[in-house]
Amino acid sequence: MKVFNEKILRVKLKNLSHSTEKLDINVAKKFIGARGLGAKYLYDEIDPKVDALSPENKLIIVNGPATGSNMPTGGRFMVVTKSPLTDGIAYANSGGYWGPAFKGAGYDMLILEDKADKPVYIYLGDNDVVEIKDAAFLWGKTATETTVELQKIHGEKAKVLCIGPGGEKLSRMGAMMNDYDRTAGRGGVGAVMGSKNVKAIVANGTSAFEYPDAEKAKEIAKAKVKFLREQPATGKGLPSMGTAMLVNLVNNNGLFPVRNWQSSFYDKAEDISGETLRDKYLVKRSACYRCPVACGRVVKNAAGENIGGPEFETVWVFGANMDNNDLQVINDANELCNEYGLDTISTGAAIACAMELYEKGYIKDEEIAADGLSLKWGDKKAIVEWVRKTALREGFGDKLAEGSWRLANSYGVPEYSMSVKKQDLPAYDARGMQGQGLNYATCTRGGCHIKGNMNPTEVLAPPEIRLDRFSTEGRAVHVKNTVNLATIVDSLGFCIFIRAVGIPGFIEMTNALYGEEVYTPESIVEASERILTLEKLFNTKAGLTKADDTLPPRLLNEPIPDGPSKGHVNKLHEMLPEYYELRGWDAEGVPKAETLKALGL
Amino acid sequence: MKVFNEKILRVKLKNLSHSTEKLDINVAKKFIGARGLGAKYLYDEIDPKVDALSPENKLIIVNGPATGSNMPTGGRFMVVTKSPLTDGIAYANSGGYWGPAFKGAGYDMLILEDKADKPVYIYLGDNDVVEIKDAAFLWGKTATETTVELQKIHGEKAKVLCIGPGGEKLSRMGAMMNDYDRTAGRGGVGAVMGSKNVKAIVANGTSAFEYPDAEKAKEIAKAKVKFLREQPATGKGLPSMGTAMLVNLVNNNGLFPVRNWQSSFYDKAEDISGETLRDKYLVKRSACYRCPVACGRVVKNAAGENIGGPEFETVWVFGANMDNNDLQVINDANELCNEYGLDTISTGAAIACAMELYEKGYIKDEEIAADGLSLKWGDKKAIVEWVRKTALREGFGDKLAEGSWRLANSYGVPEYSMSVKKQDLPAYDARGMQGQGLNYATCTRGGCHIKGNMNPTEVLAPPEIRLDRFSTEGRAVHVKNTVNLATIVDSLGFCIFIRAVGIPGFIEMTNALYGEEVYTPESIVEASERILTLEKLFNTKAGLTKADDTLPPRLLNEPIPDGPSKGHVNKLHEMLPEYYELRGWDAEGVPKAETLKALGL
Repeated sequence: MKVFNEKILRVKLKNLSHSTEKLDINVAKKFIGARGLGAKYLYDEIDPKVDALSPENKLIIVNGPATGSNMPTGGRFMVVTKSPLTDGIAYANSGGYWGPAFKGAGYDMLILEDKADKPVYIYLGDNDVVEIKDAAFLWGKTATETTVELQKIHGEKAKVLCIGPGGEKLSRMGAMMNDYDRTAGRGGVGAVMGSKNVKAIVANGTSAFEYPDAEKAKEIAKAKVKFLREQPATGKGLPSMGTAMLVNLVNNNGLFPVRNWQSSFYDKAEDISGETLRDKYLVKRSACYRCPVACGRVVKNAAGENIGGPEFETVWVFGANMDNNDLQVINDANELCNEYGLDTISTGAAIACAMELYEKGYIKDEEIAADGLSLKWGDKKAIVEWVRKTALREGFGDKLAEGSWRLANSYGVPEYSMSVKKQDLPAYDARGMQGQGLNYATCTRGGCHIKGNMNPTEVLAPPEIRLDRFSTEGRAVHVKNTVNLATIVDSLGFCIFIRAVGIPGFIEMTNALYGEEVYTPESIVEASERILTLEKLFNTKAGLTKADDTLPPRLLNEPIPDGPSKGHVNKLHEMLPEYYELRGWDAEGVPKAETLKALGL
Repeated sequence: MKVFNEKILRVKLKNLSHSTEKLDINVAKKFIGARGLGAKYLYDEIDPKVDALSPENKLIIVNGPATGSNMPTGGRFMVVTKSPLTDGIAYANSGGYWGPAFKGAGYDMLILEDKADKPVYIYLGDNDVVEIKDAAFLWGKTATETTVELQKIHGEKAKVLCIGPGGEKLSRMGAMMNDYDRTAGRGGVGAVMGSKNVKAIVANGTSAFEYPDAEKAKEIAKAKVKFLREQPATGKGLPSMGTAMLVNLVNNNGLFPVRNWQSSFYDKAEDISGETLRDKYLVKRSACYRCPVACGRVVKNAAGENIGGPEFETVWVFGANMDNNDLQVINDANELCNEYGLDTISTGAAIACAMELYEKGYIKDEEIAADGLSLKWGDKKAIVEWVRKTALREGFGDKLAEGSWRLANSYGVPEYSMSVKKQDLPAYDARGMQGQGLNYATCTRGGCHIKGNMNPTEVLAPPEIRLDRFSTEGRAVHVKNTVNLATIVDSLGFCIFIRAVGIPGFIEMTNALYGEEVYTPESIVEASERILTLEKLFNTKAGLTKADDTLPPRLLNEPIPDGPSKGHVNKLHEMLPEYYELRGWDAEGVPKAETLKALGL
């Protein structure tokens, strides 16, 4: 494999045929790869107005130039499709080992079209082997069961990307799972895979990455690993505590939403903190391909078996956000999400939203009586069981599987869904972080932190260079730059957790992959703006408008009632016009003709 | 002593009389203290158009609320006057132990008026003892000689603030020296003291700081010390290498001016780096009052005696900026500046400017023949001797003593002076740091880094949150915030090196000093804006205009010729209008009436 194999595999599921075509390397460079390249193909190939769960949608799985290389975290793949949750563009990436095995089979991109008449799985081996096989025996199985079954057939080195019952049953929160418990989680990409009757994609390519100058690349990779080991987050916090290192940091700033965002300081945070997870639950750490950080956790489930541990957002959503301070319950809920193939954030948020709807009297006892489960805050047994019912669409779980926005909307009160573009927000209260709110409101894939996370600049930075998190002044520039950086990382095939290397570091690594100076700081930033604007254009054509670039009314109108961020709301209106202008989008958020021209779109 | 003693000492030098008056605590709070309070009194009491070296100018020495407390670095005092260098406002602060001894004598502020007929010194002891004494025996003596003599008379615990021959001879670069080698250096404040015929001020007050809640204050101080010890700069870099830790960092970014800013990467930087200073020259560290950082250096002079070592700017100006890679020469030049009482930056910059004027043929051999010294780049012997001649106004040194701008201007080429408002720039090339250029251009005391240093955000920050140093986008907001923070630190009486505690940290300490919530983040920032705007108003009334808020033409028009910042110039015009607007100043940089009203001016 090379930086790009320059080969696309296209599978027409309707007639179970496949074909390959050449990837134009100039197009690849123009859109960097992975997220950018996927957006380009999705935009060119589907009508943004199609039903996301119809055969007319396509599911694109695509690597970046770094995928499969020896650069730190260079193992990620991206899934791009139209989202059944947001009805805009979805892009979700994952680590583990599947991406390199897919690239090792000789492809850069897999495009799934139409829908198979019955469940299938796809096998990709060396020497151009492509098999589309019956998957009836796998349907209904969990991620682990599916993976074990397929490795029995294809060997233990085969890498499995699959869906669980969540995706099969078209939950709008359905995730794609790979390497047992790695997740492309957000936007319902697993439901799209389920809608196409594809249970799994097994990648078993073994070719190695070929560098123009292997020695130089090795040196650069080594230097970057050293650098990452010296940084506080990637060298110390994340290895020691996983992403849950953030629980105390975020809570101590009064930014950790409690009871579906009714407040934002959790007095029992210590019980579910990264420190507690480490000291009382951690069995060992786990790492994705070529990752020196190893933020992955291994913990035990209730049965005493080793399972993947929860990360920060999961700890929050099944913890503070539903007033549950029992980490074992969080571990168990996380395991179920992984096994059934559900996005943890949206699943937890849907349950928390239901709890508030119950508290406020919208959901009546009789509706959930048959389920035998309560919707009371912090009901430990119920939390885990609601995850199961959501995945299987059992009883009231059928409503939960539609996600918090559609749930709340069915009661006429969508404002109780703490989401943007119907996708649930993560664990940072944007009332106390102005820039984070602008990021939430404008993220092209809907409510999301990771694609422009302002936590490093608004909360984690040393005080003297930290931005005033309550101020909107000049904030749009920062959000723009942070979103650009995340777009670059996503498109190259790296993990966002190594963002500390900065744009110069990413360029150094990427140019070493290519063996030539493909990008300068200016040109890679321009490429990121091209990608962002194309995603925005997709959403515009899909029917999303400025009215979708907003926040839940609670964040705009209800001041945080207590804690260190007490009294604040998000002042999105002070930032949004400047953000649009900086992006070259008009006052309605539609990319201007001159911007499209300047970006070569 | 308390947070404020609420007492001002006024000395009328003409008739050698003195009186005290009450300091209105509300005025003190409104202007925070030190720099802010000094600006308030200077603005109210003198005509900004007076000749800075005339009896009509006043010299104000003023403490902040933190001075003399047990908070880390809480020992600084500020000198405020009209500058004979810039003809605008001057404020220069210093650490050491003099400030607490002055506060311990019962005062917050000393205002020196008129001019004594002959040299005097002032003695301030406990129990309201104020003596104005003949200083004929001290005139012409160095800082160390003066201090030793006065300690013979008043005891070794007496703290001495004095001028050397530099100030006596009215060098526009004359500094005030205290505790042997601590310096209030910039803007020619020593010349103002000399113009008043005051050689020294001995402070010998011994009263201790009284806290409303001493236990709580102690706890807070302890926590802040702990925090500072954990930060990379204050816990590791500065203690180990002093401020010269920056030599390699700044040079490796191509920002370290060479040969009077003709280029900005010094290939011999390693010879004069903080590492080399530590490994080959350091005898021991030294610390100001209550400082956990101890960035002060003790090294040996050519005679083998212990002397104060150079800090970063001094290393640069007597090193790279005149192409000298001999640290012993820098140590010696630094010692002479301290002993003669000269600002190292301006003195070095004047010599470097002369070297370029010589190189370019403006200064002819015959002009310096009588001095027996060359003006060739890197002439080690000449560098040290030019400092002496500058201090004593001997030969060509008489011209150098006027500073680089007046020197270059006398040849009709002021553009060879690398200064803003005639005050020489420090060691960061603003062509490769856009925000630093805006800071230089707008600093109310003229060319200066420390009052709004963008190095932490544009260079030192971790890459992913570092500002793009070549971009001007949104930069004005950052400069404004950084300048505000420095104004707060200056006015409280802390050292800028503890800025890592951030505004919340400074407020926590300050409120503990008062024992009540005097400031919120909003109110202290507002106070800083009040101070800045008052300083700007002083300058405006003194005759400075928008044309003075600029950079040397070299920084605007000549791209850096090589190194990591090659090809860049400063794009001040892209930032200045926004900065004025953010400050509430009009397009000409004059504070608007509505701004004055809003700030209560």
